[in-house]
Amino acid sequence: MSKPSPHAAFVAEKAAIDPTNFALANCIRALAIDAVQAANSGHPGAPMGMADAATVLFRNHLKFDATNPDWPNRDRLVLSNGHASMLLYALLHLSGYEDMTREQIKNFRQLGAKTAGHPEFGHAQGIETTTGPLGQGIANAVGMAIAEKALAADFGGDIVNHRTYVFLGDGCLQEGLGQEAISLAGHLGLGKLIALYDDNEITIDGPTSVSFSEDVPARLAACGWHVQAVDGHDADAIDAALAAARNEGSKPSLIAIKTVIGFGAPTKSGTASSHGSPLGEDEAAKAKAILGWSADPFEIPAELALEWHQIGAKGTSDRQAWEGRFDALPSTQRDEFARRLAGDLPEGYDAAVQRARQTLFDAPQKVATRKASQLALDALAPCLPELIGGSADLTGSNLTRVDAVDTQFTAQKPGRYIGYGVREFAMAAAMNGMCTHGGLIPYGGTFLVFSDYARNAIRLSALMEVGAIYVMTHDSIGLGEDGPTHQPVEHLASLRAIPNLNVFRPADAMETLECWDIAIRSRKTPSLLALSRQGVPQLRTERGDKNLSAKGGYVIKSFGASRDITLLATGTEVSLAVEAAQDLNEQGLGVAVVSMPTWELFDAQDFAYRAEVLGSAPRIAIEAAGKFGWTRYVDTEDDVIGMTGFGASGPADALYQHFGITKDAIIARVKTLTNT
Amino acid sequence: MSKPSPHAAFVAEKAAIDPTNFALANCIRALAIDAVQAANSGHPGAPMGMADAATVLFRNHLKFDATNPDWPNRDRLVLSNGHASMLLYALLHLSGYEDMTREQIKNFRQLGAKTAGHPEFGHAQGIETTTGPLGQGIANAVGMAIAEKALAADFGGDIVNHRTYVFLGDGCLQEGLGQEAISLAGHLGLGKLIALYDDNEITIDGPTSVSFSEDVPARLAACGWHVQAVDGHDADAIDAALAAARNEGSKPSLIAIKTVIGFGAPTKSGTASSHGSPLGEDEAAKAKAILGWSADPFEIPAELALEWHQIGAKGTSDRQAWEGRFDALPSTQRDEFARRLAGDLPEGYDAAVQRARQTLFDAPQKVATRKASQLALDALAPCLPELIGGSADLTGSNLTRVDAVDTQFTAQKPGRYIGYGVREFAMAAAMNGMCTHGGLIPYGGTFLVFSDYARNAIRLSALMEVGAIYVMTHDSIGLGEDGPTHQPVEHLASLRAIPNLNVFRPADAMETLECWDIAIRSRKTPSLLALSRQGVPQLRTERGDKNLSAKGGYVIKSFGASRDITLLATGTEVSLAVEAAQDLNEQGLGVAVVSMPTWELFDAQDFAYRAEVLGSAPRIAIEAAGKFGWTRYVDTEDDVIGMTGFGASGPADALYQHFGITKDAIIARVKTLTNT
Repeated sequence: MSKPSPHAAFVAEKAAIDPTNFALANCIRALAIDAVQAANSGHPGAPMGMADAATVLFRNHLKFDATNPDWPNRDRLVLSNGHASMLLYALLHLSGYEDMTREQIKNFRQLGAKTAGHPEFGHAQGIETTTGPLGQGIANAVGMAIAEKALAADFGGDIVNHRTYVFLGDGCLQEGLGQEAISLAGHLGLGKLIALYDDNEITIDGPTSVSFSEDVPARLAACGWHVQAVDGHDADAIDAALAAARNEGSKPSLIAIKTVIGFGAPTKSGTASSHGSPLGEDEAAKAKAILGWSADPFEIPAELALEWHQIGAKGTSDRQAWEGRFDALPSTQRDEFARRLAGDLPEGYDAAVQRARQTLFDAPQKVATRKASQLALDALAPCLPELIGGSADLTGSNLTRVDAVDTQFTAQKPGRYIGYGVREFAMAAAMNGMCTHGGLIPYGGTFLVFSDYARNAIRLSALMEVGAIYVMTHDSIGLGEDGPTHQPVEHLASLRAIPNLNVFRPADAMETLECWDIAIRSRKTPSLLALSRQGVPQLRTERGDKNLSAKGGYVIKSFGASRDITLLATGTEVSLAVEAAQDLNEQGLGVAVVSMPTWELFDAQDFAYRAEVLGSAPRIAIEAAGKFGWTRYVDTEDDVIGMTGFGASGPADALYQHFGITKDAIIARVKTLTNT
Repeated sequence: MSKPSPHAAFVAEKAAIDPTNFALANCIRALAIDAVQAANSGHPGAPMGMADAATVLFRNHLKFDATNPDWPNRDRLVLSNGHASMLLYALLHLSGYEDMTREQIKNFRQLGAKTAGHPEFGHAQGIETTTGPLGQGIANAVGMAIAEKALAADFGGDIVNHRTYVFLGDGCLQEGLGQEAISLAGHLGLGKLIALYDDNEITIDGPTSVSFSEDVPARLAACGWHVQAVDGHDADAIDAALAAARNEGSKPSLIAIKTVIGFGAPTKSGTASSHGSPLGEDEAAKAKAILGWSADPFEIPAELALEWHQIGAKGTSDRQAWEGRFDALPSTQRDEFARRLAGDLPEGYDAAVQRARQTLFDAPQKVATRKASQLALDALAPCLPELIGGSADLTGSNLTRVDAVDTQFTAQKPGRYIGYGVREFAMAAAMNGMCTHGGLIPYGGTFLVFSDYARNAIRLSALMEVGAIYVMTHDSIGLGEDGPTHQPVEHLASLRAIPNLNVFRPADAMETLECWDIAIRSRKTPSLLALSRQGVPQLRTERGDKNLSAKGGYVIKSFGASRDITLLATGTEVSLAVEAAQDLNEQGLGVAVVSMPTWELFDAQDFAYRAEVLGSAPRIAIEAAGKFGWTRYVDTEDDVIGMTGFGASGPADALYQHFGITKDAIIARVKTLTNT
């Protein structure tokens, strides 16, 4: 008989602290081992290391009801280290979430399963957000905690009063996004946000000492967090730390949980080799032996299964009490709460849109589309209490602040406008968290060029199918003197390439209003508005109550009975196209100008509509941006009046001349194409 | 006579501390006021606030010689808060950099001037990097400090021994990128990096308290920095702090300089209104009066001008001494140093490439292109001492580590491999800093999907025209189980949209070698290699010493005498296209398969070459990615066998089937197009 490994002795010592918690946690570890082994792919180490802490959280702290997963006042739980997905799936399965069946666990990482490699929002109940790209979960959680505070202010603490817990690892803390989220949470005093940091001293490349030597608790304390550190395999210590964190009302809490990655695995525990690969059959068997686990793969012994189900149901009374309080509300408040959570628009909204249209028809506006955006917001926000705005420190440039949201969200008092600071990425990811939380429609501003900084969170808005609204101004060389670092050139194309993202570039004040209207209605597709710094005339002056932008592209002006040429344009270049069209028409050509505020919606129209709008005449596209992608609508990039490289610093007019985005250039190309 | 303003009294008090420094600093302030006023655009506040500290730095600490701006051993100075560009331009002008003339200052922010809105690398001497997008400058500076350490190890401290100074503001510290850079610098113990933080408590949206309430010095101390805080208008205190920072050898230093933004302006100082707009004539005049400045606009009084020129020339003796030491080196070392700084390749390089080609022809490799990349690196790195590698914590996945660079860069000892940690953005921006520093060719790895995180630094590589090399693996749904968060879909298109970036997606081991060769030779255009997780056969087995990938696209295989159809493909889909072509040929069709490892180089070929490769037969494109952009080469996106939305979690083969990227789909589309 061989001697027990040193690790076995270590495990035995930890097991003795709270044998019940240890046994419950072993259910998680066994499922993680089995699922990763069956898939022959995945990350067993973190679920095994964090199982003890997660068990304590579920047993004694997390407010939830597995039989009613969507209970609005449940605590939110985010797995920011999304690769540890089996931790979450095991917890949901064990505690009795109906759709997280054993079959799903067995099909971990298989096509069509709810148990994707990383947790995917919408795949199963209890998955509060999509994680995997590191740092985003903690930033989502910040958004959820903001949402909780905002909704509590609107509906009272009897109805909205929950915590947001987030698991995170070293990677989330190394990513800059993590720091942005941490700094923002500290600044906003999000006392109901509690982070459990899996301090396992291992990253993919080996021990964290290879790349990470910070004093994490000191960093977070400097950012206004309440910090604690505990043994991650000591259930009592974890329990006490969670209690202290819950007791802290004004600061977000970090609990650094010292864990051993792959806890239980005799040779791979405590090393990077347990991070991202199956343990292997031999190591898996030995790990189970060390953990004292003898059940068959994917089997949970009956009494442990029962105990876990009881954990899953222990929130039922809380939930029922909440329902009692909710039912006692005046019906208007109940209806409003239900409306907000369902994402339905209020009754007066359509009328507000129509009034705003009339106002623009009555007094056409020659303004920058960023200013038009502010006008639209000013008109629509008063009837949308769910709107919560903000900017990444560019409020005066983005023009994102209007009277209806003119209450600053501070640590002392929630409000409807968030100073995100120079933190574009955290802004976007926090908006995603607000969306998945429910009850709010977030919008946030920055310069279009800095969509780069937020890009992966914009991608996740699209992937998660949530309706965040990005207000991105200074959308071309038209911003002028700030120069090429600030001038988006490739950004429209690169954003159009993202699936399920509506990229809007409205041509005038009316289209800007229309695009805002579409964005507000669009709760499953995020919207990005690209808006100008420079003024444009209002082209749309013919009265009508139809949102023409909703088809994505349409003939905005026609000159002449025939159509000899079609000019496609977006944003500020639509009025330039109209000027060129007038000149061309005077020279005898029939010209249609097509405004294409959003390609995505245009491409969703039927063939007949698209064919009619695009016409059969030669086509030219005009956009003060890179030409990439326009060959979807024109023959070659020679037919695009646009940019071929980066911009430059100078006054806007000089830049348009310099880069040849001019009426003359349009006319010259038309003459080549039409042989006139 | 009106009473002096309270601000005037404050200025007078500060002026008395060191009247000479104050007078010299006023030259900067006056030029910043005048230039912003003349441009009617720009940021006067930060230059006015930081002028005193910058003057101390130039007078007493910065090692430079304005008459020899490119002296390799000069200290580097980075303006991370790039909007304060007039600070840098004024310093360069005053200290006598030849190309920073008064005319340039007068033409601030005008088209064609060297004095762009934000500092642009390459526009003028003394601009060490392009800044403006916040956080990048500090990360560039980290790269420069890494480069200094690496080169000092190679050439000795007599030849390479300089500091890197960086000015930064609140924005750089709020951006997550800033924290990534700070954390990395602390970890690597970059003792010669000294940051001067303009702690002015103002951001665009108002006081920093709107969004920022950290204890910045405590945060940086937690990250291993040496921190100090001083009055930013007390020259003596600044001088002492700089001396202490220089004296600290093992930790990077932060000096928090408490400044008043817009120092001198009677009503706008200390407020956001002096940040990003001209002061206005009246305020400007009053500011000059308070500062005691009576010279005409853009004029510098002769004695101050002389004193500044002396500051600019004080490094001459240092520089000459260095030249003496350099000349005393053995000629092989001198030549090698010159070669490294010039970015020329070593003599044995071509032969190493040819040997690597022969090896692949001798024993064709059926491997993932990430593995092929490692093989290429293994073959080329030994003769390239300038190569410095790394990965954002994915070394084992990116396969970026090979024997020749297998020395870890640590705080104790520089090496040729950097553990960047989970910090993609800082990795990219640090590589940019290494490039502008000179002497190194940096490459760094992550997953292609996380190019999103680094995107704006990749953009700056392209804008600055530096040859950073991005090694991005797991380039499609072919990565399998990690799922849609990890599967790049829109990334190839979005990267192809960036001007001056070569995006490579090689088809096999030979193309991977060829793309690496192009990347290494490409010192003015950054390269991004998109590499597969899954294996592919080596298609290129016909011996030849020509780099076929250098033309961007070429006919890799032809089947049949005629050409009835052309299949365009990249990366792992080229072998799929070849399989389909074989089947189609058996069915009687002539098929050419075109591999397009890099669109950018293909589009740079002449018309005749492109026409020959693309042919006149119908064309289909195959790429396991979004279809966006392919209409540059095919008629419609219906002719693209690719993705239309996000990926999914599952084994790679199942995903290719599920998303219809199959031989059958290619054949079906060919039959439609050719009516066969």
